[in-house]
Amino acid sequence: MADKEDDIAVGATTKYGERIPLGTSAPIDARDYTEPAFAPLVDRKEFGLWAFWRAGIAEFFASLLFLYIAINTVMGQDRLGGCNGVGTQGIAWAFGGMIFVLVYCTAGISGGHINPAVTFGLFIARKVSLPRAVFYMICQCLGAICGAGIVKGFQPGFYEANGGGANQVAHGYTKGDGLGAEIVGTFVLVYTVFSATDAKRKARDSYVPVLAPLPIGFAVYLVHLATIPITGTGINPARSLGAAVIFNRHHNAWNDHWIFWVGPLLGATLAAIYHMVVIRAMPFSKTRV
Amino acid sequence: MADKEDDIAVGATTKYGERIPLGTSAPIDARDYTEPAFAPLVDRKEFGLWAFWRAGIAEFFASLLFLYIAINTVMGQDRLGGCNGVGTQGIAWAFGGMIFVLVYCTAGISGGHINPAVTFGLFIARKVSLPRAVFYMICQCLGAICGAGIVKGFQPGFYEANGGGANQVAHGYTKGDGLGAEIVGTFVLVYTVFSATDAKRKARDSYVPVLAPLPIGFAVYLVHLATIPITGTGINPARSLGAAVIFNRHHNAWNDHWIFWVGPLLGATLAAIYHMVVIRAMPFSKTRV
Amino acid sequence: MADKEDDIAVGATTKYGERIPLGTSAPIDARDYTEPAFAPLVDRKEFGLWAFWRAGIAEFFASLLFLYIAINTVMGQDRLGGCNGVGTQGIAWAFGGMIFVLVYCTAGISGGHINPAVTFGLFIARKVSLPRAVFYMICQCLGAICGAGIVKGFQPGFYEANGGGANQVAHGYTKGDGLGAEIVGTFVLVYTVFSATDAKRKARDSYVPVLAPLPIGFAVYLVHLATIPITGTGINPARSLGAAVIFNRHHNAWNDHWIFWVGPLLGATLAAIYHMVVIRAMPFSKTRV
Amino acid sequence: MADKEDDIAVGATTKYGERIPLGTSAPIDARDYTEPAFAPLVDRKEFGLWAFWRAGIAEFFASLLFLYIAINTVMGQDRLGGCNGVGTQGIAWAFGGMIFVLVYCTAGISGGHINPAVTFGLFIARKVSLPRAVFYMICQCLGAICGAGIVKGFQPGFYEANGGGANQVAHGYTKGDGLGAEIVGTFVLVYTVFSATDAKRKARDSYVPVLAPLPIGFAVYLVHLATIPITGTGINPARSLGAAVIFNRHHNAWNDHWIFWVGPLLGATLAAIYHMVVIRAMPFSKTRV
Repeated sequence: MADKEDDIAVGATTKYGERIPLGTSAPIDARDYTEPAFAPLVDRKEFGLWAFWRAGIAEFFASLLFLYIAINTVMGQDRLGGCNGVGTQGIAWAFGGMIFVLVYCTAGISGGHINPAVTFGLFIARKVSLPRAVFYMICQCLGAICGAGIVKGFQPGFYEANGGGANQVAHGYTKGDGLGAEIVGTFVLVYTVFSATDAKRKARDSYVPVLAPLPIGFAVYLVHLATIPITGTGINPARSLGAAVIFNRHHNAWNDHWIFWVGPLLGATLAAIYHMVVIRAMPFSKTRV
Repeated sequence: MADKEDDIAVGATTKYGERIPLGTSAPIDARDYTEPAFAPLVDRKEFGLWAFWRAGIAEFFASLLFLYIAINTVMGQDRLGGCNGVGTQGIAWAFGGMIFVLVYCTAGISGGHINPAVTFGLFIARKVSLPRAVFYMICQCLGAICGAGIVKGFQPGFYEANGGGANQVAHGYTKGDGLGAEIVGTFVLVYTVFSATDAKRKARDSYVPVLAPLPIGFAVYLVHLATIPITGTGINPARSLGAAVIFNRHHNAWNDHWIFWVGPLLGATLAAIYHMVVIRAMPFSKTRV
Repeated sequence: MADKEDDIAVGATTKYGERIPLGTSAPIDARDYTEPAFAPLVDRKEFGLWAFWRAGIAEFFASLLFLYIAINTVMGQDRLGGCNGVGTQGIAWAFGGMIFVLVYCTAGISGGHINPAVTFGLFIARKVSLPRAVFYMICQCLGAICGAGIVKGFQPGFYEANGGGANQVAHGYTKGDGLGAEIVGTFVLVYTVFSATDAKRKARDSYVPVLAPLPIGFAVYLVHLATIPITGTGINPARSLGAAVIFNRHHNAWNDHWIFWVGPLLGATLAAIYHMVVIRAMPFSKTRV
Repeated sequence: MADKEDDIAVGATTKYGERIPLGTSAPIDARDYTEPAFAPLVDRKEFGLWAFWRAGIAEFFASLLFLYIAINTVMGQDRLGGCNGVGTQGIAWAFGGMIFVLVYCTAGISGGHINPAVTFGLFIARKVSLPRAVFYMICQCLGAICGAGIVKGFQPGFYEANGGGANQVAHGYTKGDGLGAEIVGTFVLVYTVFSATDAKRKARDSYVPVLAPLPIGFAVYLVHLATIPITGTGINPARSLGAAVIFNRHHNAWNDHWIFWVGPLLGATLAAIYHMVVIRAMPFSKTRV
């Protein structure tokens, strides 16, 4: 069939059934599946739709609430200290859990990015148009700044004395270590996003769309478990920018800031390439021109 | 079509398919979707249905069990202390986890509110009638008082000596800080409830009704992670009232009590307005009169 | 319709649609729904089915693995101590998480009880036959004894010196407190089981059967968060018996043991009555004779 | 019907309905169900399919990311120490959570094994062919070595000084204890995998394929909670090999290494036998030759 990507079956047709057990290998093709067309680079019709502007507003508020809850949790831990607070694991849950809740809430409105690296990765894979990608990123950054600002508003002095949740490379690690941690960490996140949004898998696995927001939130949680001791964990340029802008006065908040843009955008690009080249095998596929 | 909200497409019709990937933008319309009618302000027929009275009983018992488990966990942490107890994170799980379980259990019976702020928000959006809203709130408050009372019954002296899980603004924060934390915290919760119960999304995203109780419970958990150090986290007037009534003897349990009614009800109202104006765009919609 | 429980609509018929939003009230009836018949008290045909004996074997192994993981976690925390181990919250996750996994694994084989109190509650509600209930309880108790025995086998001396995970009422609490905690705790668990297995809700709410094992596991986790400081949390007579038998030498393991049978069985009975009388309203219903 | 395993109903036919409540016993047969054929021992056609090679690449990267996140979390805890890090519970989440995310992401590509013991168990049950099993195991081991290597790259000195996340039997336990812990722990994991991938249950329980990756991840988490104090928890030969190879210089990393191959492969074999003999009752079944 022409409108079905036939998975580059080098010399053979499918031999497994449609609903194959989780433990075995992937089926070769799937009924009811059509590879979605690339999003247009620029689509002027978008600007006339409420759905477009509403999506930006939803990204703004989601980013605001994300920073508000997450940075508040970081500050609370600094306040209570050690065993009395929620601990590093609680901080990791605050970041990952909010992404789970917010992706769940905004998926139907904006696609649930809440992260310029995710938007960038989906743009690279041509799943969103250029103006939409830029608009989302601006809304995400503005929302993140507002969210961090509200947290500072509660206790400005304490906020500034305790780092304000800003990302920086920890002592004992080089800038290269920090950059590497951001690249791999964002790869984990954006790779999970691509797996959860893969149109082909949706046609096949009933659990892909149902659980989707949960593994995405878990990916954020897990990367925080692993790299809070290294960079405080960015993997989200809006989150890093928001905290840095509000923590502004202190120069060292900006010293490493490029790492939290270059790393995530590079990691997202690698995840997009991995998905397109290895998983979807686009260069080898003939049925999609 | 007249009975389909057409999403205020300012100048264009839909161009994306029905089942769009999580990572892209929202579709413009959805088949099989009908905006539910507003609940009547007063509906006398309700009083003759067992389902109405049963719903109140279910809200009563759910609120009782919620306070019983959550306040018991708070007391247990005070008893074991520091690293030996479940920690602040365990307390946050007790509140959020119980909301997850109880929303799951009572969703089909009463709608699973277990919180006057949720009931109020849904009333503002005209999803429940006025008598039902009032009846639910009374049942929730009575259940919460009973739940806290059982916990006190185990060890009255220890209960009173350790604050009884009552909410108050922590030292170092102003009443305005506490009010703000309650408003934003309740906004997060009620915004999640609206997202999970949105009739339009249900017609489109298969994961909305399946996961629904989980992100609602997570929202409660996350707000607790963030604001336990500020107010002990209310975002539920019944929970605050129940703890305050049983902790009664101590005057300071009542000093800040208005914050835990004004904050949550205001936050719920803002979430209802946000959902109706931005997400559902009701003021601009023509197809729903 | 005669074969549909019509929910005791005292004076009116249904007025809400079939798929009603989570936030509103319960629908009055549901298409495709038939109240399942009571299980027969004794059904001789069962004894000839491999499915019957297999169910008991599955309950045996599930109870064995449950105690193995949970008691091992308790012992490990005693070994590492304080902040170095998984903490009280980790112990609560071990019990609740295993119930989640094991209910998921055995639900299709034995119904996923893994707890005599759950079996007893379902027998009270006439969902399992008497011989099946007795057979399950015996298998659960034998499995629990074996599971605790394996843990003791690793380090007999350390096991006996650290209480062996046996339940007893903590200092500062009366036996009545312990009994009350077991009754309410088991009520929370069995109430969740009934909500997850309610045939009427399954016909209506798409998320009931999908999530089912998760809220059941969470209920166990949450009761542990709340009552580990009071009784160590039983809410499962097989778990209490298994630990007590293996910890045998010490008399005080048996002193309070009746509490961990009377409490859970009473709590399960109350949950069964609550479900049948309030939620399913059987005494008032005419359509089911 | 000949192509339906009729569950060895010794003397009777089914008497319960198709969608039976979670709390009762298993139904006797299920419509729409066909036992999948055994995978061929060797299937030359596989080598010509991109899906085969892609599956290996996916296993490689998944294993790499698994070790990267998990070992990084172990190192971070050693770095921050005690209450300042994520704790033993956070480490258990890092292992279990990554398995949840990676099984979710790769289930549709490779079957989501990410563990030679899982691959071996599925091979024993004839769900994958021999060349595929060998190919997967090689990819998993290479990925694990690379993942651990990246972690060491961040801080080689600190990595070697703190054990590098390598598995070994803790002081106070015999090698037999360690072997036993690995056998039972892997049994828990592979038993959960078989339950989640059981073709018969999928035809019956709607929640089996939806939740599948979650209980598998939880099983890994729970085994870590229980046996980190005994062996550090392997239950995955690739994970143990990867950490041991990178930690190479130290002899004791290899002393116990056989335990982390023999234990998991034996546990996986027992789980495969349990599933085939008890749950699927293959020896007694006539309809499948």
